[in-house]
Amino acid sequence: MDKILLSHGGGGEEMNKLINEIIFKAFENEILSDANDSAILPNFGSDMAFSTDSFVVTPLFFSGGDIGKIAVCGTVNDLSMVGAKPLYLSCSFIIEEGFELSKLKEILNSMAKTAKQSGIKIVCGDTKVVPRGKCDKIFINTAGIGQILAKDIEVKNIKKGSKILLSGDVGRHGSVILAARDEIALESELKSDCKPLNLVVEEVLKNGIKPQCMRDATRGGLSAVLNEFASASKCEILVFEEKIKVCDEVVGVCELLGFEPYELANEGTFVLVVDEDKADSCLEILRKFDESANIIGEVLGEVTGGDTARVILENAYGSQRVLELPKGELLPRIC
Amino acid sequence: MDKILLSHGGGGEEMNKLINEIIFKAFENEILSDANDSAILPNFGSDMAFSTDSFVVTPLFFSGGDIGKIAVCGTVNDLSMVGAKPLYLSCSFIIEEGFELSKLKEILNSMAKTAKQSGIKIVCGDTKVVPRGKCDKIFINTAGIGQILAKDIEVKNIKKGSKILLSGDVGRHGSVILAARDEIALESELKSDCKPLNLVVEEVLKNGIKPQCMRDATRGGLSAVLNEFASASKCEILVFEEKIKVCDEVVGVCELLGFEPYELANEGTFVLVVDEDKADSCLEILRKFDESANIIGEVLGEVTGGDTARVILENAYGSQRVLELPKGELLPRIC
Repeated sequence: MDKILLSHGGGGEEMNKLINEIIFKAFENEILSDANDSAILPNFGSDMAFSTDSFVVTPLFFSGGDIGKIAVCGTVNDLSMVGAKPLYLSCSFIIEEGFELSKLKEILNSMAKTAKQSGIKIVCGDTKVVPRGKCDKIFINTAGIGQILAKDIEVKNIKKGSKILLSGDVGRHGSVILAARDEIALESELKSDCKPLNLVVEEVLKNGIKPQCMRDATRGGLSAVLNEFASASKCEILVFEEKIKVCDEVVGVCELLGFEPYELANEGTFVLVVDEDKADSCLEILRKFDESANIIGEVLGEVTGGDTARVILENAYGSQRVLELPKGELLPRIC
Repeated sequence: MDKILLSHGGGGEEMNKLINEIIFKAFENEILSDANDSAILPNFGSDMAFSTDSFVVTPLFFSGGDIGKIAVCGTVNDLSMVGAKPLYLSCSFIIEEGFELSKLKEILNSMAKTAKQSGIKIVCGDTKVVPRGKCDKIFINTAGIGQILAKDIEVKNIKKGSKILLSGDVGRHGSVILAARDEIALESELKSDCKPLNLVVEEVLKNGIKPQCMRDATRGGLSAVLNEFASASKCEILVFEEKIKVCDEVVGVCELLGFEPYELANEGTFVLVVDEDKADSCLEILRKFDESANIIGEVLGEVTGGDTARVILENAYGSQRVLELPKGELLPRIC
């Protein structure tokens, strides 16, 4: 492999390889290698979380959101996933010459609204303009700083016997983007799940529940998150198909285009691993925010020797299959 | 104006308008409105600085640097300009499908080397890949966090009678990029000034000199910085042409292509405003790092009424002209 492929940005196996074998290797240090959704920085009185994402989604405006909303949510959610309260956000624009100012204003307003909703302040930024044809309309980067509310929420804490919870149904963001690009007419209006997750996370923590770890199921979807859990903990993971909600429109889009709903990106849905005795009370809180939240499975025993820990999906009839880490091209420019 | 123009990214009048009238207005809050090179965040034990920049420079590799080096220096320098010690950096890549992996590795190594040199740690990141033709090779965003070593270094502190110092000669980065694009053969090798400025800033502060304010002279060059100083302080500024060093190659490129060296971008050169009685000792420190550092001028009296404070450039024969805020297209993709 000597050139960058679309799959290197897909959230699956190829992206993991690029990040672990090339990028982490160049920059190696212990904070980066922890590979959390946000870096944990110990120097500032209380611990701080720091995270960044660039957004290149197309189309810019979609059902349930736009590039501005997703740019704020993406970083707010990465901060939330390590148990941090999002405080400050930077935003940086790369804009193509000729981009309509009215659209820029719409995006800015959407960012401002989402920032307000999640209580994060946009405090610094940058604007670059490139000649026509040198980028596609507008790309946005955000970086965020948060204050850690509960320490040590990390994949390395996952242990046997814990329960796996999902905060909502899956596949909506990916399906909305797919449907928009392929101009698929849906029977009812399907909306992206794009939303800030900090309030539900704060509610969970406030109620004395400290998840072992949390991950929002963005690129690579639920499959990528569960496989990351399995790989980091070396524990097999069992999830039940009937517990994972997928709405009819998403099923329809997936059947039509040959996608797997578990591999589709979400932008406001997350997976939690919690101690068994906290699972029910955690679910109760999640359901206050989204009725489709569910306990979807559990962490099985550790694999021995050099075996790879798998994610096993069991259907309603008790038959099982392995849910693989997504591979190949998936969906470019989903976020 | 209903479309984004190249001049909106140029660092001059049009960019100021876009930022102040549209972006700040959408996101309004007191930290953002302070408009420092970095946001100052008060919540974390000691004060913290936070800054971001996206980099779209072309060509990717140029004499004296590359997009990786500039991406680290840009944010390190923005943190340094508010008196902060750079600690943590995020980096986020948008890569065009088909980009050569060997070039990516070269850029990563350059980032790692520059980060090490300036003592900043790269702790989080993101990678997006877009289809061929949807961006130009690679864009990099960095955001950085620093610890404030000396509080309250801001343009609002500029007062009459202070001295203006420049840390090196001007126009080298802009000229290198111009020469590379126009394939101008230079007699000797001109190098970009691209470098991290945190060590010289720390040395200034360590010696008990607290500048009233500092700014690195990037897009819009020395002219943009001096005009920002005049506009923020409402004081006229007088600088002496013979004190501002411009090397022969830069003069040559400017004459050939009709540019003004004071408007060309620098990537490792900064302007300081210091109390008159500290000017000489400050210059001594600056010269340890760069022999072309100089005291280039002074802050004159405040303008009265609704007058605009001007920047006045005096030549060796005592004749004066106004140095305007750069306007128009300047150089796209200079950084």
